[in-house]
Order: sequence, then C-alpha cells, then structure tokens
Amino acid sequence: MAYQTNKRKIINDPVYGFISIPGELIFDIIEHPWFQRLRNIKQLGLTSFVYPGANHSRFQHAIGAFHLMEMAISTLRSKGVDISHEEEEATYLAILLHDIGHGPFSHALENSIIEGITHEDISLLLMKKLDEQFPGKLSLAIEIFLGRYQREFLHELISGQMDMDRLDYLRRDSFFTGVIEGSVGSERIIRMLNVADEHLVVDEKGIYSLENFLIARRLMYWQVYMHKTVLSSESLLVKLLKRARELASSGTDLYTTPALKFFLKNKFENNDLWRERMFTPGIIAANFVRLDDTDILASAKYWTDHSDKVLSDLAGRLINRNLFAIELQNDPFPEEKLTGLKKMAGDLMKISPEHLDYYVYAGTISNLAYTPDAPEVKILLKNGKTDVISSVSDMFDQRFISERVTKYFICYPKECR
Amino acid sequence: MAYQTNKRKIINDPVYGFISIPGELIFDIIEHPWFQRLRNIKQLGLTSFVYPGANHSRFQHAIGAFHLMEMAISTLRSKGVDISHEEEEATYLAILLHDIGHGPFSHALENSIIEGITHEDISLLLMKKLDEQFPGKLSLAIEIFLGRYQREFLHELISGQMDMDRLDYLRRDSFFTGVIEGSVGSERIIRMLNVADEHLVVDEKGIYSLENFLIARRLMYWQVYMHKTVLSSESLLVKLLKRARELASSGTDLYTTPALKFFLKNKFENNDLWRERMFTPGIIAANFVRLDDTDILASAKYWTDHSDKVLSDLAGRLINRNLFAIELQNDPFPEEKLTGLKKMAGDLMKISPEHLDYYVYAGTISNLAYTPDAPEVKILLKNGKTDVISSVSDMFDQRFISERVTKYFICYPKECR
Amino acid sequence: MAYQTNKRKIINDPVYGFISIPGELIFDIIEHPWFQRLRNIKQLGLTSFVYPGANHSRFQHAIGAFHLMEMAISTLRSKGVDISHEEEEATYLAILLHDIGHGPFSHALENSIIEGITHEDISLLLMKKLDEQFPGKLSLAIEIFLGRYQREFLHELISGQMDMDRLDYLRRDSFFTGVIEGSVGSERIIRMLNVADEHLVVDEKGIYSLENFLIARRLMYWQVYMHKTVLSSESLLVKLLKRARELASSGTDLYTTPALKFFLKNKFENNDLWRERMFTPGIIAANFVRLDDTDILASAKYWTDHSDKVLSDLAGRLINRNLFAIELQNDPFPEEKLTGLKKMAGDLMKISPEHLDYYVYAGTISNLAYTPDAPEVKILLKNGKTDVISSVSDMFDQRFISERVTKYFICYPKECR
Amino acid sequence: MAYQTNKRKIINDPVYGFISIPGELIFDIIEHPWFQRLRNIKQLGLTSFVYPGANHSRFQHAIGAFHLMEMAISTLRSKGVDISHEEEEATYLAILLHDIGHGPFSHALENSIIEGITHEDISLLLMKKLDEQFPGKLSLAIEIFLGRYQREFLHELISGQMDMDRLDYLRRDSFFTGVIEGSVGSERIIRMLNVADEHLVVDEKGIYSLENFLIARRLMYWQVYMHKTVLSSESLLVKLLKRARELASSGTDLYTTPALKFFLKNKFENNDLWRERMFTPGIIAANFVRLDDTDILASAKYWTDHSDKVLSDLAGRLINRNLFAIELQNDPFPEEKLTGLKKMAGDLMKISPEHLDYYVYAGTISNLAYTPDAPEVKILLKNGKTDVISSVSDMFDQRFISERVTKYFICYPKECR
Repeated sequence: MAYQTNKRKIINDPVYGFISIPGELIFDIIEHPWFQRLRNIKQLGLTSFVYPGANHSRFQHAIGAFHLMEMAISTLRSKGVDISHEEEEATYLAILLHDIGHGPFSHALENSIIEGITHEDISLLLMKKLDEQFPGKLSLAIEIFLGRYQREFLHELISGQMDMDRLDYLRRDSFFTGVIEGSVGSERIIRMLNVADEHLVVDEKGIYSLENFLIARRLMYWQVYMHKTVLSSESLLVKLLKRARELASSGTDLYTTPALKFFLKNKFENNDLWRERMFTPGIIAANFVRLDDTDILASAKYWTDHSDKVLSDLAGRLINRNLFAIELQNDPFPEEKLTGLKKMAGDLMKISPEHLDYYVYAGTISNLAYTPDAPEVKILLKNGKTDVISSVSDMFDQRFISERVTKYFICYPKECR
Repeated sequence: MAYQTNKRKIINDPVYGFISIPGELIFDIIEHPWFQRLRNIKQLGLTSFVYPGANHSRFQHAIGAFHLMEMAISTLRSKGVDISHEEEEATYLAILLHDIGHGPFSHALENSIIEGITHEDISLLLMKKLDEQFPGKLSLAIEIFLGRYQREFLHELISGQMDMDRLDYLRRDSFFTGVIEGSVGSERIIRMLNVADEHLVVDEKGIYSLENFLIARRLMYWQVYMHKTVLSSESLLVKLLKRARELASSGTDLYTTPALKFFLKNKFENNDLWRERMFTPGIIAANFVRLDDTDILASAKYWTDHSDKVLSDLAGRLINRNLFAIELQNDPFPEEKLTGLKKMAGDLMKISPEHLDYYVYAGTISNLAYTPDAPEVKILLKNGKTDVISSVSDMFDQRFISERVTKYFICYPKECR
Repeated sequence: MAYQTNKRKIINDPVYGFISIPGELIFDIIEHPWFQRLRNIKQLGLTSFVYPGANHSRFQHAIGAFHLMEMAISTLRSKGVDISHEEEEATYLAILLHDIGHGPFSHALENSIIEGITHEDISLLLMKKLDEQFPGKLSLAIEIFLGRYQREFLHELISGQMDMDRLDYLRRDSFFTGVIEGSVGSERIIRMLNVADEHLVVDEKGIYSLENFLIARRLMYWQVYMHKTVLSSESLLVKLLKRARELASSGTDLYTTPALKFFLKNKFENNDLWRERMFTPGIIAANFVRLDDTDILASAKYWTDHSDKVLSDLAGRLINRNLFAIELQNDPFPEEKLTGLKKMAGDLMKISPEHLDYYVYAGTISNLAYTPDAPEVKILLKNGKTDVISSVSDMFDQRFISERVTKYFICYPKECR
Repeated sequence: MAYQTNKRKIINDPVYGFISIPGELIFDIIEHPWFQRLRNIKQLGLTSFVYPGANHSRFQHAIGAFHLMEMAISTLRSKGVDISHEEEEATYLAILLHDIGHGPFSHALENSIIEGITHEDISLLLMKKLDEQFPGKLSLAIEIFLGRYQREFLHELISGQMDMDRLDYLRRDSFFTGVIEGSVGSERIIRMLNVADEHLVVDEKGIYSLENFLIARRLMYWQVYMHKTVLSSESLLVKLLKRARELASSGTDLYTTPALKFFLKNKFENNDLWRERMFTPGIIAANFVRLDDTDILASAKYWTDHSDKVLSDLAGRLINRNLFAIELQNDPFPEEKLTGLKKMAGDLMKISPEHLDYYVYAGTISNLAYTPDAPEVKILLKNGKTDVISSVSDMFDQRFISERVTKYFICYPKECR
C-alpha cells in the first residue's frame, strides 16, 4: 500500500516533544485516509474566534492521547501490572481511533448535520470496517473500546474519569488557547495511576494532583469550553446549517460541497438506519469520511450571496464575526423575555415572524460532553484498600466531583440591546 | 458598524500571553472581514503534513508581529527616540496589514493560483482601498509600508533584516512546529534595538543575540521552511492546481468553489492588469478577499472522483498524503536523470507522455522569501559609530549573513525508486 | 555611595524574563547590603532536600514581587484608579522590603534562633532605620506596609489575600520545585484586579482564575510547603539549634560563626527588648544583618565532630540527610505512642532519658504562615456591587477559602520503625 | 546504612521533569555524603551576582547529566548499539561522579584555594576511594571515566565534544540564568547520536542541531560564562582568598571555618603530594569533602571587621557587591596602562605600594574550561562514511568549531575611572 513507503517513525509535538510511533500497524492506521481526515477538523470548533491560537486538530489530539497511553502502560507495568503485547497494541489502537467518528467542528455540529447517532457510534462503525481492511487486527481494540474486555482498566484508560483522552485534551487545549492555568500535570497524574481489581485507581499520594486536575477541568469549562462568545458563535453556526438544510430539502438551489450537500438533503434518524446504510456503497460512509471543517467554511462564505435573506444574513454574521449578543445564567429565562426580544427584533430589523427563531432563541449548555457518566475515580489507599475520592478528599464532595452543571442561555441581535 | 459593538480589548496568545489592542482604529482593522480572512490561511501552508502542530494562521502572526511592534516602539522611546502618536499608530497599522495580500497556503501558491503579482503588491492595493473606507486614516501607514516616509527606521521595523515580521514568525513557527531550537529571544533582541541617523541599528552588546537570531533562522530554513517533505507536498499542490486550471480554462467541468473557479479561469499577467481590475466591481477583489485555504482543500478532495486521470490521481496523492519521492542537492540534476525517471514512470505507471511533467519534475528552492534584499544590519558601537555586522562579528562573514542559498530538487513517483 | 557607580537597570529573571528597575531610590535599596543579604537566604529553607531545584533566594522573590507590583499598578491605572507617583514608589519600596527581616532558612528558624519577634516586625525595624539613612524617603512606604495609609488597597497589594507577595512566591516556588501544577496565572489574575471603595477587589470575570489560585495554593501547601520530608528536615534543624544554644549558653565551647554565636548566647524575649536593643550599637542589628543560611550550614557540618553526642549526632543526620521518620495526621497522636517510641529509642539506641526529646517528638503544622488573617477577597460584580467570593462562587464555601488546616506530626529515628 | 531506608526513586527537576533513579547502587552514590556536598556548591560560582536565578547547584547538574545519559543509552540501543547492563551502570556512575572533585564556587576557585591539582584528578581520587567503600563496584566506571575502556564512545558520552556534561550544563545554565536563547535542544541532539567504529558520531540529519548547539554554546560563553561583571566578581574573590592565605600562613589570626583554615594554611604543590596525602587520615580528604561555598561566604563576611585593611576592604567589596571596574579586550593591555592605574589608585585611595596588586591587576580569560581538547565531532553520513563537521557543514570552519578564544582583562577600583 502507498502509505507504507513513507514511514516516519517520530512525530514532533509542541506539547510533549518527540512522539515515537511503535510498529507497523499503528503507523498504517495513522496514515489511513480516514485518520488523516482528522487533520482538517479543529479540536475546539469555533473557539479560535475567541482564542486565536486554538487551531489545533483532532489529529494532533489523537496522537497526543496515544502518547500519554504509552506512558500509562509503561507506568502500570513498572508497578507490576501484567499487560501483554496484544493488549498494549489494542489499547493504542483504541485510543487512536476513539474520535475517528467526529464530524466537522467536533462537538459544535453533533446533532446538527450529523443526526441520529453519536460520534462514538460512528467511531465504532468505522473501527469495525477497519477491522475488515486489516483483517481481525482491531478486534481486541474494539472489545476494549466497548468496555467488553474483562480487564476493565484498559477501557478506563480510554474512557473514564481519568482517561488519556481528557488528560490530553485538557493539557493541549490549555496550551493552544494560552489559558495556562488549565494546564494539567499529565505526567505526574499518569505516574500516580495503578490498577486494583482490574480497575484503574490513583495512588493515595496522587490525591492533590487529582484535585488539581478536577479544578483545571472546571476552569477550562468556563474559560474555554463554555465561553459565552464561543457559545454564541457555535449556536449561530447551528442555526445557519438548519436554514441551509431547510432550503436544500425544499429544493432551493444552494452552493455547497458534495459531501455537505448529501447531509443537508438526507436525514438518518437513528443508529439503526446509520448502521444499515453506512457501508451500502456510496450512501453514508463515502460522504462522511470526506466531510470536514473545510466543507462548512467553504460553503458558508458563499451563502452570503444567496437570495434567501435569512441564509445570507446568518452566513455574513458568521464570516464577519458579527455575532449575536448572549446572556448566560443558572436559571431558565422567562418566556416573556424571549417574546419581548422577538418582538423587538421583528420591529427593529424587519424580520418576518416565521424567521424570528433564527434570531432570538434560548438554549441550555451543560458540561455533559466533558464529564461522562463514568464511575467516580477510586483512590488506592496506603493500607491497600480503595475508596472513592469524595470520601478521601477533605475538599471535594460528590456534588463537585461529578459536577453536572446546566446553564441557560439566550441569544439575540445586538441591535436589541 | 457591526463590529464595533463586540470589542475585545485583550487577545490571548499562546506565544506571548496577553496582547492588548490599543485604540479603536486598530481594533476596527482587526475586525474587518479582509483581516478576519487571515484566520483561514495557514502561516506555513502544508508544513503541518510534517509538523502536525503547525496549524497556526496568518491572523495569529499578524497580531503577534503587532505585539512585538508595541515592544519595539516602547523600547525606542525609552532610549530617547521621539516617535509621535501618529507615527506609532501608522506603524501598527502597517505591520498588521503587511500580509493582508497573502493568498491560500501563503507562499506555497504564490505564482500558482495568484499570478502576475506579489502578495506585497496585493497588500498595498487592499491597504489603499481600506484608506478609502477609513478616509485617510491609513495614508501614513502606506507611506511607511512603502518605505517612502523620511524616518526610515519605521519601515525597517516592518521590512528589514530585523523586522517584527520575522521576529514573530521565527518564534511562532518554532513554537507551533515544536522545533524549539529555532526559538528566537525576540524580547532580548528588541531591547537591543536603537536608531542612528533615522535607521534601525542594534546596540553593540546585542551582537550575540543577533548571531543567535541568524543561526536560529538558518536552522528554521532547513528543519522547517525547506524540509524535503514539505517541498514535495507543496510542489504536488502546485501541479494539482496547474492541472485544474488547464481543465477549467479548456472548458472541462470541474467541481470547485466560486472564488477558486474565478482564479482558475482568469489570469492577470501583471501588476497593471491587477491594479486596473482589482476594484472594478466583482472582478478581482470580490473573489480574492474570499479565497482561503478552505477553497483549495474543499475542492481538491472531490477532484479525486474526477474523470481526468491526472487530476484525480494528483488529488488523491495530496489528500491521502501519498507524496512523490524527492531528492535535494546543491547542484542541478543532469538532464538525463530527469529523462530516465520520466521513461521509468511512463513505463511502470502507464502515464502518457504529455502528462509526464506532472509526475516527474525538477525545480529550485531558495531561502529568498526569507531573506529579502534588505541592507545588512548595522551595529551601534559603544564609541557612537555604526558598522555592519559582518565587520563587527568575529564569527560571520558577509557570505553567511546574506546567505542566499539555492538548492535543486527533483520529484518523482515512489514507484520509480 | 559606592553602589551608585554600577547601576544595572535590567534584571534577568527566569520566571518573568526582563525586569526593569525604575529610578534611583529603588535601585539604591536593592544594592543596599541589607537587601543583598537576601541572596544568601533560601526562599524555601530545606525544601531543596526534596526538590533539588528549590535553591532560589529571598532576593529573587523580592524582585519578582516588585515586578508584579509594577504590573498591578499599571493595570489599576488603566482602569482609572488614580495613583500618584509618590504612592507608586512607596508601594514598590514596601513590597521590596516586606521580607527584609527574614532570618536564615526563612520560616524554618522563626522562633528558633530568632525568638520573641516576628520577621515582619524586624522588617519594620529595618525599614525605619533605612528611613533614617535615606531621610524620610521611606515614610510613606512604612505607612502603607503597616496598613495605616488611608488608601487601603495599596496595603492589600502587599499583604492581603491576593497580594503580590504570594502571587510571586506561588509561581516562583512552583517554577523552581518543578511542581508545575502549582503554577498560578499571575498575569491573568493581576489583570482582573480593581479597586472599589479604596479596597482591592477582583472583577467578576476573574472568579475562575481566583478559584484556580486558591487550588494551586492548596496544592503547594501539601506537595511542597508541608511536605513530610521537608517537615522532618526542618524540625531536625530546629532541634539541632536548640541543642547548640543549650550548650552555648551553658558555656560549652562550640565552633560557630560570630553572628550565630551571638544569637545562640543571647535571647530577647519580646518585641520591646528587640526594639530597645536593635540599634544599640553592636547589639542586635550588627549581627542580624549578617546572619544568613551560610552561618547555619557552615557551623552544623563541623558540629559533627563535637564531643557532645547529641549535637554531633543531630548534625550528622542533617548533613548526611539521614532524617527522622515522620508521621502526619489530622488528629493528635496519643501520649502513649510518644512514650512507647521514646522507650524503644532509648533501648535500641542507648539514648539517655534527658536527651530523648531530641529524638522523639510531636508537633503541629498549619498553613497559617501562608494564609494570614486577611479579610476575604471581594468580587466586583458586573452590577457594580461587591461581595465576598464565598457567596459568589458556586464551588467554594468559607471553610475552604480560609482553609486554616492544622496537622499533627511525630518524628522518631528510623531505627524504631 | 542509614540512607538505605529513605529511598526516593523519583527526583523532580524543573528542567526535565521527573527523573527516575534506577537501582540501588546509583541511589547509594547519590545519598553518599560526598555527593550530597555538591548541594552546597553553586554550578556557576558568583554568576548569581549578575543573573540572580543562577543559584543551581552541582548536585542538580550531576543528576541532570545522568538523566541525559539514560536517554543517550536508550537511543543508542534503539539504533542497534549493544550496551551491556554493566556498561550502562558504569557509565551512569561515571557521569554522576565526574564533578565530585569540584571545590567551592566551581571553576572560580580552581588554582586558588585548591592548588596543584585539577578537579578532575580529585574526582578520580574520590572515585577510587568509593571503589573501596563499594568494593569493586566502580572499577569499570573509573576505566570509562579515564578513557581506558576499549569502547571509547562510553567515555565520549562523559567527556567529549558532545558529552552529556555539557548538554546538561548549557541547557541548565540557560534555564536558571534566563538566557533562553542559549537553550540547547538536548533531546533532539541525543536522538541524533550514533556509534561508528566504537566512537560517538552524529547522524547526518543532525547537522543543523549540531550547529545550533555550537552557537548556543558560544552565546553562553559571552553572555554568561565570561560576562564582565562575573569576571570582576570572581577575580575579586580570588584576590580576597590570596590575601587571607597570606595572612593565615604568616600566623595572623583570622576567623574562618576549620576546613577553609586547613587549605589556607596548607599547600600541596602537585598531584603527587595530593595523591600521597589525600587519604592519610585527617589530612586532605577529611577537609576537602567538607569544604563548600558556605565556608567561603560565612568567612568572608566576617573578614570585613579584620584589622588588616586589605582583607577587610576586599571582603567588604565582595559582600556589598561593590566590584572593581573591568575592561575586556582581544589584545593584551600595555604595561603602562597598568602602571598608570596603579599610580592613580595609590594616590587616590592611599594604598601602599606592596598592596597595589590586590587592586589593580591584569589577567586573561579563555573558554578553555568549556572546550576541552577533545577531537572534533564526527558526522555519520548517509553513505555510511564518517567525516568531521568542519568538512560537512557549509557554515563552520575548523577555527570556529574549536574556538579557542583568549581575552585580556584589567581590573581596578571604580574610583580610578
């Protein structure tokens, strides 16, 4: 195969320095076109509107998480945890591919262009297809990814409270945004990992690092991941694509790229449909594995010329960074506030009633995407027992650690301020 | 204007930390759609194929160079150089806008899509237009940019051997590629700047920093800017666009974005034509200020389906990072080598003779883009006289400092190795 | 004066880069022998036993805190807070001199060699003397240092919950120990400072930075400032000096430096005695301003030869880093544990009963030194009102923010384990 | 032994992060009192007078060089170089102990207090003694240290043009002084190392890193190691100790520490004498292994009270950082300049003729200490041959690479300016 002839064994990463790629299979997966696609998907969507340095890609993140996994495996082995070569390779493959199913702008467009399925489920569909292309070589990786393998700590290293995914993204997002306080001592934390009863645990003396990790994560939520301007930008993008889909599905002519056109015109309401049609030739996969940020950006800027006023206005706002005003609070906004703003927008800006939802809207944001329903981190005490961190730490209570926060926001044209 | 209502006065930069934006006009220029376009133009073209971290944009670079300019102005004033508020603002505007005329993938596609004009000349055309939009407010900036203003050091801060442009890009490119040895002590060098006879000079004690700067620049040339794989990638991209233009101009149907289509179909051979047509409604400018990296990427990936074998093959090679082999040396390759490789490629890969130039080609690369014909840096000696660095340093001779290096390369399919 | 002829205006600091020294008086204070003495006092006492990088001095810290003060003054002025040149200079002097009264090994030997007075009180005595040497030029600085000046925020910048002292030491200690998670975004926090009713406040949007600061501080407590091995080392040093004083005051001959001999032989039980005798020629000050870490280290290593078994044994343990075992817990140790360990130590190591207190001892440690009784930080809300952080943050309660923690420890020879 | 019970396996280093200590013997050597002594010897002598951050110790450097050696061994093995476990451990021991023979203030006082022997020879004497204490376990390390072991690359890793000693000190000194441009990409260089014919070579693609290393070294020479103020400080210290020795040997009473007194009173003119008396009980070694920076500092400050005017004046200048003026140039100063300055100093400052040499003196400084007579670095070309860098690089000639520079300086009281 073509990509076998140009093997680079070392990757330079501004965050960690040199990353060595061990073995042929790992290398072949990295060189695979589906993995290379991640180069054109920004890790943080439109966050670069606020933090101009945040142009890093899902590709970089996947490589970085893989690198941390190497450190984790090596640490666990040094503590006497027996991990076979097969398990090691499978864990590397699983972490590399954990985000392969992400669509354009990462989380921003989940449930917008790509509906009826999560990015994790698409990752799984693509991994299974790769397991056909490299016959059987990804089977164990898939088992681990799904949490079906008996040694649960391997899954927890990929998806759990202290997995390599978030250890990388917190550090990397902090690095590229320049929000240095969000920086996580990934290496120190990884050195504190251990295994008890086949579950991932943290050595007792790692408790302060763990606290620091949880606080850094919290800081990143509010300073970066749920930054008001980011929220306003991404909700505008969602509205824009909603309008484009409306026009496309009603037969209005609309300049766009082939793959984006496919998703604007087609909806697959649920997992079953996706699974059924994914690899039917030409139907989903052929379009999905081409779709990246450039399709959105290269379409939206030309929509500013479209005869549909809503489409062209929203597109212009996005391209020129002329965003909606946004308010964010802990409680829902009263219905009257929304009604009032809609009235004002309609009057001031001559927006017809059926289009007001594109200009004045409410929504909620939670940190759910960043705190999955994984069980709480366990601490391995010096006496050999394990306990959850909320019992061990004198600082955190359960409420804080799980920290499921929902906030309410409302967006409207700045003209209505 | 719309962008006046959302003013952020501080920008977070991972390289320098906080950057404050002083004053309304600077802010309005940054918010202008033409400047915002730079967000979608990578500073280092396809370098991220080799250094995955190198996704930083021209937007970031322009802001960074502006920040260094603030430091330089403040340093010079502290040494007694009188700089008026008008000169200060004009210098800021000139450095911010010095790259506004860059097309997609920065240097990679100069003389390819955009022909007959340099990016500096387009910058000037756009600056003049902005001077109409903000009536007269950019006139002094344009004088300084052109080197026509009598206080020459202001121009030299923008374009000279030690200008803020290269002080930023060397440091920034080093940061994002992870090639840390290329890092330049921008702050230390700036603190060594001074003015003598209205020219920019370096205080004598800054000589070691200057040497270090010249060496770091040299390291970046070879490790990054002229990296073989980058060269192979970017020459492939040039060939691909050449083929696309050939097809487009001969009437073959070709999926692409509107702005890219315009440039594939139209050629403006020289500056005069550009100047004449630039702001004729709808002709050049309307397309140019929309064109960015996403047009190229979002087109090329769909060209892999095109019925023209050359176009689809080259596009596939680019998208899947299946690059040509490349050889690089100090002397030209003998004609026979090229002929031999072409024959082999024709035989092995069934390429018809008229297409062989797309697959086997020679070229030259020089560091010219990085070492303009500016006069040599002058040192301000302790005795009050000035002298060129090649006389003062016991290490460098003139040959090294100007360092105009040309290398010869040849590219061909890996199948011919 | 001698130090006027060698003025360096810029200091290179590995933490912040270049630090400019504005003005003659500031420079003269830095060059003063009393200030230069701080070069030989380690900021973190014996912490380098655990973190070998922690060799930084009080001198570096004072310069760093001064640098942050420059940023703070400049930030507040940019927000419209009027600060006169005199107030500015006085605040600089006060922060520079705030630690001038520290004795050897900083906190480790407070209440050991130097008894009956705090380091703050000695700072004040020395500042008053300097005010005589530079007639009247430090009067306002002293007023601000004491919190008597009507503009209270100036005092709060020196000593308060968010003062420049701790913003520097947290960042600096994190830097030199290598405990990078303890790093505080000093610059970001300083940019969030403001003044309301002449008190220092934090802008509402700075709340996450503030949380991060509080957590970083907490991490530093436990990872560094109250590290078990540091505690064991410093308590050993205290015991060693106690024995030396016992011998010295009972007339036993003991090699030591002149200044240390003075403090081993003389006790000044309270502030009044110190104040009275401080500048009586030759009595206290002449010895105090000479005493630094080198007196202790250069004495202790020779005590290993002393005929007194307790002194020589303790000194050997310190010099050879053969420390006592230590246990640390939240509750006091039962009296029987201490008694039991003493018995074992007496039996195993043939220590005579009257010396057992040197080998087996209990104590308490609190983070008091790091969390003075300053009032809680106030947040300046967007609505213009102020409120304490414990009301504003949804994360912290008052208990956590004041965080007065006391822990109990017990030390004994490792032979008793 | 006592230090076996408190084994810490991981050391935190601000430069490299975590450093793991493998195995018992390495750990025992680190815990040995002779090695612990290096904690109180500053790597850069009085350089902290100019760069206040430069308080790092020989202890930190030795640990850091050891860490780089671990990387080097691992890199070489990954390239197929066979290195046995015994060779590995011996190389670690040799690099750890290579500086064990350094006296106070590192290079500053070589040939001053410690005469007639180099620090390398003392290192050897101490290593041989350790080889008795750990019977035979250091024999191979000594062979490698001496360059007698047949596999010469192991010696070259410790002492050669690209050894781990200088890779660490350049990076570390750059880090702590804050002269960041002197930073060397140690990791990148180490990854370029290889072995050909049992000699250490650099892979051809490492040539730019090598150039960068040579330039960074050059920058450090002039910005740090031969900084004028450092030179003035250290020559003052040498003069001070010369005076102290003169007084001590002529029977004048002089406060000092026991170990320093021994060396002030005794001279051992050559290696033979040292070797003969080193471990004669109580003669040299017992004093040498106690002597560190604190002896000098804790003595000099009290010499300011001494009745000998020369001693007290020089001591005061050192303690109060009231240094001599210094001039530095490429050619020797004319004899008349020295005579003239002496006359002026005698007249202005009433210095009696026999003491003028303490106040006005000339000297030379070369970078010899930093560029030993090791053979030039060889490059392993892609064709499998090796060649010296001066032939391969198009930038450097032999003159620059060996770069033996000598400069002439003259010091005199500032009053004579």
